[in-house]
Amino acid sequence: MLPQWTLERKRDGQELDSGEIRDFVLSYTRGEIPDYQMSALAMAIYFQGMSPRETADLTLAMMESGSVIDPGRIAGRKVDKHSTGGIGDKVSIPLAPLVAACGATVPMISGRGLGITGGTLDKLESIPGYRTGLGEEEFIRTLERCGCSMIGQTAEIAPADRKLYALRDVTATVPSIPLIVSSILSKKLAEGIDALVLDVKCGSGAFMKSLADARALARTLVDTGRAMGRKISAVITGMEQPLGRAVGNALEIREALDILAGEGPEDVRTLVLALADRMLALAGVGPVDAETKLHDGSALETFRRMVACHGGDPDAPLPRSRRQIPFPAERAGFVSRADAEAIGRACLLLGAGRCRTDDAIDPAVGLSDLKKIGEPVERDEPLCVVHSNGHEDWDLVARLISGAFGIGDGPVDPPPLILEQFEPGEG
Amino acid sequence: MLPQWTLERKRDGQELDSGEIRDFVLSYTRGEIPDYQMSALAMAIYFQGMSPRETADLTLAMMESGSVIDPGRIAGRKVDKHSTGGIGDKVSIPLAPLVAACGATVPMISGRGLGITGGTLDKLESIPGYRTGLGEEEFIRTLERCGCSMIGQTAEIAPADRKLYALRDVTATVPSIPLIVSSILSKKLAEGIDALVLDVKCGSGAFMKSLADARALARTLVDTGRAMGRKISAVITGMEQPLGRAVGNALEIREALDILAGEGPEDVRTLVLALADRMLALAGVGPVDAETKLHDGSALETFRRMVACHGGDPDAPLPRSRRQIPFPAERAGFVSRADAEAIGRACLLLGAGRCRTDDAIDPAVGLSDLKKIGEPVERDEPLCVVHSNGHEDWDLVARLISGAFGIGDGPVDPPPLILEQFEPGEG
Repeated sequence: MLPQWTLERKRDGQELDSGEIRDFVLSYTRGEIPDYQMSALAMAIYFQGMSPRETADLTLAMMESGSVIDPGRIAGRKVDKHSTGGIGDKVSIPLAPLVAACGATVPMISGRGLGITGGTLDKLESIPGYRTGLGEEEFIRTLERCGCSMIGQTAEIAPADRKLYALRDVTATVPSIPLIVSSILSKKLAEGIDALVLDVKCGSGAFMKSLADARALARTLVDTGRAMGRKISAVITGMEQPLGRAVGNALEIREALDILAGEGPEDVRTLVLALADRMLALAGVGPVDAETKLHDGSALETFRRMVACHGGDPDAPLPRSRRQIPFPAERAGFVSRADAEAIGRACLLLGAGRCRTDDAIDPAVGLSDLKKIGEPVERDEPLCVVHSNGHEDWDLVARLISGAFGIGDGPVDPPPLILEQFEPGEG
Repeated sequence: MLPQWTLERKRDGQELDSGEIRDFVLSYTRGEIPDYQMSALAMAIYFQGMSPRETADLTLAMMESGSVIDPGRIAGRKVDKHSTGGIGDKVSIPLAPLVAACGATVPMISGRGLGITGGTLDKLESIPGYRTGLGEEEFIRTLERCGCSMIGQTAEIAPADRKLYALRDVTATVPSIPLIVSSILSKKLAEGIDALVLDVKCGSGAFMKSLADARALARTLVDTGRAMGRKISAVITGMEQPLGRAVGNALEIREALDILAGEGPEDVRTLVLALADRMLALAGVGPVDAETKLHDGSALETFRRMVACHGGDPDAPLPRSRRQIPFPAERAGFVSRADAEAIGRACLLLGAGRCRTDDAIDPAVGLSDLKKIGEPVERDEPLCVVHSNGHEDWDLVARLISGAFGIGDGPVDPPPLILEQFEPGEG
C-alpha cells in the first residue's frame, strides 16, 4: 500500500486499518516514509480525528517503534503520573518519592520545558550532580534501591514519537487530541508500568485553555488506555494561577523539598496527596495514609536516596541568583487574578525556560513568594520576589508581572484546584 | 513570520495575507521552506479552501517564482486554451494553428500525459523530429513566423508549480480547487497572453467526475482570472466517452490532421470550432469564420509550418504499430455506453501512457475507429481497432474494452458535448 493511499483515506474521513497505521509509523521511523508525507497525515488527522481504535493502534505502533521495558524486570506495583504541563507544576518531584515511600514503584520518564511550561528534568538538573540520562540497567537498579527513579526519554524509547513531535512542532499539528494522546501514552506505556494517573491542566497557563478541551483530552487518554488494556485515570486540575508560590527551576526544587518536609504551599500539598491516593489505589497498594509519610520524613529520605543514586548531592546548596527583587503591589486589596500565562512568560524572559529546544536555561532565576488569588495585600507589600541574574529586559518583565496580577476591593474565593476526575471504568 | 504561523492561520480558517502567501511560495521555491511544511499547508488548504483573493495571490506568487514572458515581446493578440485533460482530447493540436490562421497569436505551453490522460506534448513528439523543448527566444521566433508554437514547460516557467505539483501527487493534495487553479493559471499566465479559454472536462474519463465539481472549478478559474485582470472564459465539456474516434499518440495526430483538412469526427470538429470562436472573440479578433480556414487549407498549412519550425518533418510517416486487431461486438444493437475511463486504461496498458512520470511511452499504440454512443452496430462489427506492439496483457486489455462498451436494443441520444459556459464578466 502506497503511503499516499493512507493519506487519501484519512483525508476522506475513512478509518485506517491497524496494519496500515503500524506500517506507516514504522516506515516513518526507519526513514522510508519522508517527513512531507507524515506532516500531511498529521494535518489530515488534525481535521478528521481518529477513532478510539485508531488512536490505540497509533499509540501501540509508536510505543513499539522503540524498546519497551519488560514489566517483569521491575519488582512491585509499578505506577506513574504524567502532567500535560503548567506553570509552577513541580508536583512530580515530591510525588514520586512519596508514592515510593508508600510501597509502590515509580519508574518516571519526564520531559524538558519548552515555551512557558517548565520541565521536570530541568528542575532536577538544578540539583548539583543530578544525572537524568540513566541507561535502562541503571534505571532498573535505581528503582530496586529507591522505589523511584526520574529520568529523561532515552534514544531507545518511542523514537517515532521523538521524530513526529519535532515535526508537529513546525507544521501546526500539535493541538490534535489523537496525536497528543499517542505521544503521551507511547512513552509512558514503554516504561513497563501497570497503571498511570494523568493530570490534565486546564486554564490560561496550560495547553488546554477550556474545560471542554481538557475534558476531551482526559476522556481520550482514559479510553485509549482501556483499549490497550492498561489502567489509566485522569484528573483535570486548574491552571489559571501558577501552582504553589514559586516558578523557576531551583526555586521549585526548594518548594518540593518543603512539601517533602510536610510544609510548603497548601495547593501543591493538596494536589500531591490527591494524586498519590489515586496512584496507590490504581496500583492496588494500601490502604496507606500518604500524609504520614510527609511528616515522618520517609518521603524526604526516599527523595535524598534517589538523588544520590542519580549522582546528585542532596546536601549541596541549590543555585541562587545574584539579585532578589521584591515586586511591590501598587494598591491595597485582595488578589483577584494571578495570570499563569503572563507569569510563565516573565520567567521565560528571566531565563528560566527556553524558546527553542536547544536554548540553555538558567537554574537560579524565576519568581518566588507569589501571592495567590484571594489573599489580601497591602500597598507596597511584595506580590512576588523576582530572582534575576540581570540578563532580562527588566521593563518587559515588570510589565508582565504587573499585568498578571489583579487587585480588587473585596475578597474573592480561590479558583478550584481539582475540577474533574475520570476513572478507567467510565465511558 | 515563521512558516508554522502561516500553517496555523490556514488550519484555523483565517485568510492569509498577500505578503504571507508570496513569502511562503518564494521561500519554498528557494528551498528555505522544506517540503514537510508545504505539504502540511497543502493539506490545510484542502480542508479550509482559499478565498478568491488568496487564490489569485497564490497564482501570482507561483507565476512570479519563475520567468514571465513580457507580452510586449510577442506581436498580435495573444490567446491560449487549456484543457483539464481527457481521453482522446487532441483538440489543442488543430486548434492552435486554426486560431493562428484566423489572425491571433497562440503561445501554447502544454503538458505530458500521466495516468489515463494523454498529453499534448507526447502526441506532438510522435511526429518525427518535433522538438517540444524550445527556449524562450526560439519560442518567440516561432510565434512570429507561424502565429503559434506548442512547447513544454521550461525550467524557467513557474518552478514553484513544478515543485509543488510533484509534492501534491504523493501527499493526497491534488484534488483541491485553489491548488488546481493556481497550478493551471500560474503556468498559462506566464506565457504573456492577453486571454485564455479553459476547457473543463467532466465525466468518467476526466479528473472532475461530477458537474458540480466541474462547475466549481470553472467558476474559480474565471473568478481568479478576473481578480488578476486577465480575460478568462471557461467551457465545461462532456467526457463520458472519449473525444473523437482515436486514443493514442500518433493515432490522435492523424485525427488532428483530418480535422485540419476539414474532415475527421464531428465531435472534435464541433469542439475545435466552438473553442476557436471563443478564443478569437476573447482576443478581440474578427469577425472571422474559422470553419473556412479548415476548408481552404490555411489551418493545415499553418500547422505544417509550425512543425517545421520545431524541427519536425510534416511529410514523414507517423509511427505505426505492428498489429491492428479489430475488436468485434458480441451482439447487434446500439452503443449505449463507451466508458472513457476504461478505454483510457486499456490504452495505458497497450503502452500509450505512463503510470509514473519517468515511464517511456509507445507513440504507435492505442485504439482507433471507436464507435460512439448512439451509433448502431452489427454483431461482429468492430467496436474499435486495437493498435498493438504485443507488449500488453491482452486478456486484461480485452476485458477493459469489452467492459467499456454497452450495447442496447434501442437507439440512444449521444451525450451532450458542451455542458456549460462561463464568461469573464459573470459572477
